Amino acid sequence: MSKQIEFFWEPGSSYTYLAATQIEKIATDCGATLAWKPFLLGKVFEARKTSLPAAIPAKAQYMFQDLARWAQVYQIPLAQPKVFPVHSLLASRTAIAAGHLGHAAKAAQAILGAYWGEGQDISQEAVLLAAFNKAGLDGAAILAKAQEPAVKDELRLNTEEAIRRGVFGAPTMFWGDAMFWGNDRLEMLKLALQGKIAA
Amino acid sequence: MSKQIEFFWEPGSSYTYLAATQIEKIATDCGATLAWKPFLLGKVFEARKTSLPAAIPAKAQYMFQDLARWAQVYQIPLAQPKVFPVHSLLASRTAIAAGHLGHAAKAAQAILGAYWGEGQDISQEAVLLAAFNKAGLDGAAILAKAQEPAVKDELRLNTEEAIRRGVFGAPTMFWGDAMFWGNDRLEMLKLALQGKIAA
Repeated sequence: MSKQIEFFWEPGSSYTYLAATQIEKIATDCGATLAWKPFLLGKVFEARKTSLPAAIPAKAQYMFQDLARWAQVYQIPLAQPKVFPVHSLLASRTAIAAGHLGHAAKAAQAILGAYWGEGQDISQEAVLLAAFNKAGLDGAAILAKAQEPAVKDELRLNTEEAIRRGVFGAPTMFWGDAMFWGNDRLEMLKLALQGKIAA
Repeated sequence: MSKQIEFFWEPGSSYTYLAATQIEKIATDCGATLAWKPFLLGKVFEARKTSLPAAIPAKAQYMFQDLARWAQVYQIPLAQPKVFPVHSLLASRTAIAAGHLGHAAKAAQAILGAYWGEGQDISQEAVLLAAFNKAGLDGAAILAKAQEPAVKDELRLNTEEAIRRGVFGAPTMFWGDAMFWGNDRLEMLKLALQGKIAA
């Protein structure tokens, strides 16, 4: 089986931010290619008749503590977003658009970093523009491309694909049919890719 | 801060089974003592107005796959229980009773092993009796003690304590006020106990 990791991700997901900071190194270490697949987690929650984990107050409180621990382990910045949950449709479309321009990884890191690393409101066009430009990308070109029907369609298709393949949260990684859910399953994905466990 | 791990656990929780196979070694490695605290997860779910994770079909399917991967990593047996969810009140009471007799750890491993390692119906007195006897414990004495009011009270108090302290799932580990939820946070607990991250 050729080694490709499909990384289904959503800008509004905190654990996606954590995982995104690690996934490129994991792919490299395991000799795998990486496909960034933005999708709409809200639509998946609707399809599964569930809601975001932070909807349980005791869990929400714990989760931010947990995120702070992971941020220490990964040595990455972590902010409390100004707006949560955030309307992530435009950000997700720009992620697809950037992919079409050959910058899927850089754009993903820029979006997730702006939201979870700096706490900015990524539902705002100006915030996305600045984040892309800061990352050395052409923000204006990405935002223009994000309005193309092919980009909008791809985001919808990714979301439908996620639902069809059993996704119920983010991030979700696939290696072939083997599904791995969550930042905390990156090690398991690695063990599988390295042939140390049956996936 | 003196190093004591409080291990809040529930016989019917699969990830508790996984964690229980590791927690004694972690305590030893980190120079910590270990307090086994059986509680009723169902009552916690009621208090949090939530339900067990396996209630979402896509998640339930994934979870058994995930458990099988962990069983490979830990090299432990894993069975699909005959009865799930299981009525765990008696088993939890015997766990407390065994603790009063000085055998909290052995009893926990016997109960979790019978259910998750062998798939047996641990709501049955005969199953618990056999599991304790097989583990070298006095099953009859444990079952008799499980009927004492002090034992029943302690289980209720552990459950109330769990709710008060913010528990929403199992297993949950505490080191002082620092809470760690899930088998997949054992490494994080370890990093905290070793002073490698702020808890």
